Amino acid sequence: MSEIFDRTIMAELSEDGRSRRQAMLMGGAALAAAAAGSLLPGGARAGAAGKTEKPIDFLFAIYPNGTLLDFAGPNEILSLLPDTKVRFASPAGGLVTLEKGVIFGPTEKLSDVQKVDVICVPGALDLSAMMKPEILRHVRRLSETARYVTSVCTGSIILAASGVLKGKRSACHWAFLNVLKEYGAIPDPARIVKDGRFMSGGGVTAGIDFGMAIAAELRGAQAAQEVQLLVQYDPQPPFHAGNPLDAPPKIRDAVFKILPGSENGLMRPIL
Amino acid sequence: MSEIFDRTIMAELSEDGRSRRQAMLMGGAALAAAAAGSLLPGGARAGAAGKTEKPIDFLFAIYPNGTLLDFAGPNEILSLLPDTKVRFASPAGGLVTLEKGVIFGPTEKLSDVQKVDVICVPGALDLSAMMKPEILRHVRRLSETARYVTSVCTGSIILAASGVLKGKRSACHWAFLNVLKEYGAIPDPARIVKDGRFMSGGGVTAGIDFGMAIAAELRGAQAAQEVQLLVQYDPQPPFHAGNPLDAPPKIRDAVFKILPGSENGLMRPIL
Repeated sequence: MSEIFDRTIMAELSEDGRSRRQAMLMGGAALAAAAAGSLLPGGARAGAAGKTEKPIDFLFAIYPNGTLLDFAGPNEILSLLPDTKVRFASPAGGLVTLEKGVIFGPTEKLSDVQKVDVICVPGALDLSAMMKPEILRHVRRLSETARYVTSVCTGSIILAASGVLKGKRSACHWAFLNVLKEYGAIPDPARIVKDGRFMSGGGVTAGIDFGMAIAAELRGAQAAQEVQLLVQYDPQPPFHAGNPLDAPPKIRDAVFKILPGSENGLMRPIL
Repeated sequence: MSEIFDRTIMAELSEDGRSRRQAMLMGGAALAAAAAGSLLPGGARAGAAGKTEKPIDFLFAIYPNGTLLDFAGPNEILSLLPDTKVRFASPAGGLVTLEKGVIFGPTEKLSDVQKVDVICVPGALDLSAMMKPEILRHVRRLSETARYVTSVCTGSIILAASGVLKGKRSACHWAFLNVLKEYGAIPDPARIVKDGRFMSGGGVTAGIDFGMAIAAELRGAQAAQEVQLLVQYDPQPPFHAGNPLDAPPKIRDAVFKILPGSENGLMRPIL
């Protein structure tokens, strides 16, 4: 598949090149912004002024059937953070078919990644692609040398299965939270959980809050808040049904029925 | 590129097939969930019980250099909504290289899409791929027959440029909000704006709130709230800097400097 992948990338880059050439006609900030391929003109990022720190290597370990928003949320935050290089890896490398058939990439092959500063494992219902012993071994290997070992949603179940969360507190999607116990981790229902160098977010959308928290941890509160304003993260949900404690009983009971076992935090992921 | 694209899809589907075969060993809910390729087991979706309505065709019109989270947010909400079919289209069809070089797909070719119930145009800094007259013509054509014409972030500038927002109130990323006036639309700083059949969200992360609002509009408050609980949308940002009115002055001023013109809502997108 790597040849197909390379040719696809090349075709896309060439298309991208056209946009950039067009942008060059604009001059000034627009030109620089197009070159940076970012919301931020001039290649600048939030809080970047004068910084000369070594870039942080931030790796999302994604996989087939994964949930897009679990990593698309924190990716948007981390990608705008100064001196931070976001990378994606997956068990097979290349393009990855996520939940609902969407294709995302490019990704490096997980086994090819030597070392990162932060590893983040996002979640899904179907964790099977990551639950193979040879893949869990790479998750463990990268976790042992990372400054921060992190997850969003049921990604914490993958981390736990790799053996690195023994005795550590961790968040998880509420419906699956207590599955963590089966791997020796300590379930914590909070939306963002930090236990030493382990940081985790709750279900799906919690990835954005987690992203903000790790951004502040990595580059300080000023830079994190600048990114927050850049992505206008001032959430105003039109309803209040986002966790089982606050949701109206009618909503909660309907969802308990959709997700068997979730009333006890014991919905089974596909392992 | 279509041959490459087809071969990539086939390779990925075959890989996907392996996961599903493995999931079959689990039996029961897990099997059904794997077959549905969704967080929800049994092919069920929130509030779906007994419904026989015609599925809603919900189209995201995406494009090269677009911002992933602008549509990944509402996509997660809409994909879990009952009787709702989410589609993606782009100017050239196939895989699309978004901002920061990430590849997303598959997409239909925009000119091939006949008619949809909802069109949603997400945003970016670089709108140039959508600003070509022949592409704007398709945006206008689909908007004229859609039940709802919607956008996230600077996607409203694309809609406005296509001519469909004349005299309509619309949201936009705060930094670009007043650019809407140049196309005869009425800028509204609210996070979610509804003006008749036109609905829009503010910058980037507002796409999730917009997604919740349109979900309720399309399938009712019960179904929308069930999805909210499924994706644990109970936001708890660790800082309060998500809009220029609330952000600490130090944060706001730094971002005004990063985004020239934004203090007046007149940051220039790439057109």
